[in-house]
Amino acid sequence: MNKKLAKEIMQRCDELSKFTEYDGELTRTFLTKPMIATHNSVKRWMQAANMTTRLDAVGNLIGQKQSKNKNAKSLLLGSHLDTVRNAGKYDGSIGVLIAIAAVELLKDKDLPFNIDVLAFSEEEGVRYRTPMFGSKAVIGDFKDAYLDLVDSGGVAMKDALINYGLNPAEIPKAAYKAEQVLGFLEVHIEQGPRLAAMEKSVAIVSAINGATWAKASFVGKAGHAGTSPMDLRQDALLGASELIIELEKIALSSDGLVGTVGQIEVRPGSSNVIAALAEFSLDIRHSEDSKRQKAVKRLLAKADEIAKKRNLKFNYIENTIHTATEMDKNFINILKKIDPSVPIMPSGAGHDAMIMAEFTPTVMLFLRSPNGISHNPEEIVWQKDVEAALKLVVSFIEKLADLN
Amino acid sequence: MNKKLAKEIMQRCDELSKFTEYDGELTRTFLTKPMIATHNSVKRWMQAANMTTRLDAVGNLIGQKQSKNKNAKSLLLGSHLDTVRNAGKYDGSIGVLIAIAAVELLKDKDLPFNIDVLAFSEEEGVRYRTPMFGSKAVIGDFKDAYLDLVDSGGVAMKDALINYGLNPAEIPKAAYKAEQVLGFLEVHIEQGPRLAAMEKSVAIVSAINGATWAKASFVGKAGHAGTSPMDLRQDALLGASELIIELEKIALSSDGLVGTVGQIEVRPGSSNVIAALAEFSLDIRHSEDSKRQKAVKRLLAKADEIAKKRNLKFNYIENTIHTATEMDKNFINILKKIDPSVPIMPSGAGHDAMIMAEFTPTVMLFLRSPNGISHNPEEIVWQKDVEAALKLVVSFIEKLADLN
Repeated sequence: MNKKLAKEIMQRCDELSKFTEYDGELTRTFLTKPMIATHNSVKRWMQAANMTTRLDAVGNLIGQKQSKNKNAKSLLLGSHLDTVRNAGKYDGSIGVLIAIAAVELLKDKDLPFNIDVLAFSEEEGVRYRTPMFGSKAVIGDFKDAYLDLVDSGGVAMKDALINYGLNPAEIPKAAYKAEQVLGFLEVHIEQGPRLAAMEKSVAIVSAINGATWAKASFVGKAGHAGTSPMDLRQDALLGASELIIELEKIALSSDGLVGTVGQIEVRPGSSNVIAALAEFSLDIRHSEDSKRQKAVKRLLAKADEIAKKRNLKFNYIENTIHTATEMDKNFINILKKIDPSVPIMPSGAGHDAMIMAEFTPTVMLFLRSPNGISHNPEEIVWQKDVEAALKLVVSFIEKLADLN
Repeated sequence: MNKKLAKEIMQRCDELSKFTEYDGELTRTFLTKPMIATHNSVKRWMQAANMTTRLDAVGNLIGQKQSKNKNAKSLLLGSHLDTVRNAGKYDGSIGVLIAIAAVELLKDKDLPFNIDVLAFSEEEGVRYRTPMFGSKAVIGDFKDAYLDLVDSGGVAMKDALINYGLNPAEIPKAAYKAEQVLGFLEVHIEQGPRLAAMEKSVAIVSAINGATWAKASFVGKAGHAGTSPMDLRQDALLGASELIIELEKIALSSDGLVGTVGQIEVRPGSSNVIAALAEFSLDIRHSEDSKRQKAVKRLLAKADEIAKKRNLKFNYIENTIHTATEMDKNFINILKKIDPSVPIMPSGAGHDAMIMAEFTPTVMLFLRSPNGISHNPEEIVWQKDVEAALKLVVSFIEKLADLN
């Protein structure tokens, strides 16, 4: 039964991957047309598992398996249905589909709590460059100002909601009441290579790493590549290169710390002109906030040193800081008891679970990413891992039922 | 007289700087409309110095002061009238105007040679991304294939010539015969900070540096910035950063060598994705070819080492190699004798003199760039330096007249 359902989950991921904004790739962002077909399919599968369904005012699709106990709280399961540009098939969707399959397996069993499967409308932050509107609405943290955000086509979020048939004024009603919620479980692909390296199917997530995101730049002076002596240069790219190498050193010297420069631009950007400006992104993460903060501090001290040595100016603008989010200890223990061989690891990426944890006991399961690749059409998932995750989710629900 | 003329040269540079393709900046590329007004002004000044004028088939404007000796050879003086985008007022033009002023000062004197002032039509390589068409035509090295080059607006060079009233079929006639030429002298701004550091007005150029221009890249693997452990990454930007630092080390360890990375691009180029590709330019120059070649070899060996260590692929495509061009020893000696205090230095940038030296004894004089800046509206020149250069050019011509 688990095996058959795991196979069906794979097929359902294939089906959803057809619903895209652009032919030849999977791109399905917040409230776009292909989300309608996606909702239709997911609703059909929810109903086949005997769930009632509804769409909340921010576009989250919610299926509910009701308990016979009228005063029952809800256990929330789920993940998101939106994707990045040119995405893989599994990031987000597979968590929703495993949750539905778990309910399918338990459909003839009365539980002391409702199960609400949440298919979040927005997690990736592509369309409005701000992520996780779906889970923010669920925890009552959706800000009115979001409605005025405008996408690259000039469409305000308010209008995107109305065009989708939703009523922005009702978004506050999408919020759950904390006292009615038992907790939240999200299954998501790991998006990294660690489970593959351990040859394990699933992991329990201990915490979601805190992150510092910043834009930094060195400013020097343009000059002719042929006529400017090396010792009189103020080459901004040399400053940036030195700092990029330093970030790697800092990250390698602190267990679990990751630091990345994924963007860099130089001006004026001619092959025969010394760079007057080198602007680059910084992404620094760790599961412990103090270690991340220490790393940022070390990096900035080094940047000042480089700027001084090279007669450059260093600029640093922190865009976002996410503090680390611990997953619920009790839920982790329940999962560990079910299968002590399941490894525990922090999540490097942010997830809806990060938002949900502010509101209710939350835990995540990671599914192996066999090639470590995500946010890319090469993203893969193995059926046997889906089967293992599904089994663990069902056991978790049953255990929770025993405890409640 | 020198002082008055130096002042006039400054005013003439101001006048020419008004002839531009775009309001608010000086951009005057090969055979564009503002070149017509430029030619009219320069022709007027040439005629005021008693020169006959003609436009050759590639658009070089040539003024001649004829010797009474019918069999006299020609001493060539000059520089270029085209500019880079958003240029300064002096790069190129000032060399033409100093040459005209020198003839003005000598206009009542019969010389044993003609003086031909060459105002080259194209040196910067902006419009057709290949430089020095003017001087190439003068030495008979203009290739028919150039005529089919197309600018960014889709205009073939052949048509640009015809639109300017020129006949492409007559370009071969623009070539001088080597036996009719005595030599070539070009005055040009230094475009670097060395004369300013020495507090000197002018320098004699010993050689034009050889240059290696290449496009290089490291190819790694994209990955999630949050979920990819540092030790499993194949970060292309880290490879590039390490090599950029290494290029500086190599350049600093070899006297007179300059190495520059002025362009870099990374893909996919998201702040939370590890760079799978980092592509960058390389510009490496020295006045001795063997030292430049040795530096390139050291750099490539280091690149292979980095690629191996970081599990990256390194690509390297050499676009152009210019071998170093020695200036004429005899001309240098004449100039040195006139003023032994004038410093001698190699030129980091390429110039028409590089082309002319293949054909005839050639020498260059550098004018101080007080702030070291060129290819930029901030480019400046001091009138007293123009006066010093003019004096040296006139003395050179007189000395040459004594010797011939």
